[in-house]
Amino acid sequence: MNNNSCGPSRIAGCQFTLFPMSEKFVDIILGAIEEVDTSKVWKDTDDVSTCVRGRMGHVFDVTKAIFLHAAKTGEHVAMSGTFSIGCPGDTEADSYMDESDQLLNEEKSQAISQQAGCKFSLYPMGREDYMDAIYEQIDLSKHRGVEVSHAHYATRLDGDVKDIFEAMHQSFDSVQEKVSHVTMTFTISANSPSNQS
Amino acid sequence: MNNNSCGPSRIAGCQFTLFPMSEKFVDIILGAIEEVDTSKVWKDTDDVSTCVRGRMGHVFDVTKAIFLHAAKTGEHVAMSGTFSIGCPGDTEADSYMDESDQLLNEEKSQAISQQAGCKFSLYPMGREDYMDAIYEQIDLSKHRGVEVSHAHYATRLDGDVKDIFEAMHQSFDSVQEKVSHVTMTFTISANSPSNQS
Repeated sequence: MNNNSCGPSRIAGCQFTLFPMSEKFVDIILGAIEEVDTSKVWKDTDDVSTCVRGRMGHVFDVTKAIFLHAAKTGEHVAMSGTFSIGCPGDTEADSYMDESDQLLNEEKSQAISQQAGCKFSLYPMGREDYMDAIYEQIDLSKHRGVEVSHAHYATRLDGDVKDIFEAMHQSFDSVQEKVSHVTMTFTISANSPSNQS
Repeated sequence: MNNNSCGPSRIAGCQFTLFPMSEKFVDIILGAIEEVDTSKVWKDTDDVSTCVRGRMGHVFDVTKAIFLHAAKTGEHVAMSGTFSIGCPGDTEADSYMDESDQLLNEEKSQAISQQAGCKFSLYPMGREDYMDAIYEQIDLSKHRGVEVSHAHYATRLDGDVKDIFEAMHQSFDSVQEKVSHVTMTFTISANSPSNQS
């Protein structure tokens, strides 16, 4: 496999699961999905996770919006997932790459104010100097409103959910400009009772 | 960074979060942790995730046992996490590498029968031929009792929780013998109502 096999389309994707820590988890998940416009991404859901794929901006727009609409219920909700771009052999759903730039969920997302804690890790694939690629491309200090700290195997971000996703989006985008295949794992948690003392 | 910076210790770790989809999530998490002997691993927990580190066998033993003890409550529970080995610069908690082989939770885990679905992805770092490293080392067909299927960005395993963790453990172990720094993400889900029709 070489970088050329990825093609010019640069389709991005996110495989994620939403976890409401509540008996009402089904209603919270379905309610969040109902409020989010997913028409600009390819989408597939099973009992373990949901996968959305398309242009990077829409993939982040949809993932962030689903978490925000679930978290605004006030219940303790978390989301874990993996963003991916340039995965070799991944050409399905290419038709979604023709969608326009306009983000379908940005206006509703901007109206929601929600604090959260998040841990994320970036994995540039197929590069011997992958650690340098991470250090060179990421400057989290410029993200106002997000508190950055180091965790084992991860970087921790605390702040508003929109700022957290913005910081992850920019980090992911910077690295994928230099490295063909990049994955980024994250776990974000809101309304945790252990954080409300 | 080169492979030599990893040192000879080959400390493994797992950063994971347990998600009970229930109002009783605190009791289920604390109950599971109480039943699991973590004395052979370094452990750190905050409001987003738990990190355990030590010898690979104990890291898998503890992670599997925590999920099993939570799932046996019958509630819909899931766990997402990332196993890691050979992470450059990761030398803390090295004292746990002197622990003996004996798995502290194996006997209790073997007594629990629990079906689940799981998606996992292996990421060998710092190798241009990382896809070959994955394909060469993993032969999931030999794992009896686990149904293997392909998912976007992941491999899906269905079966008993113990067999699922065994398949992940062997895959991770095979790849880390050839590649210094390996990470493996997973999401495992049990007692999902969408799976009980």
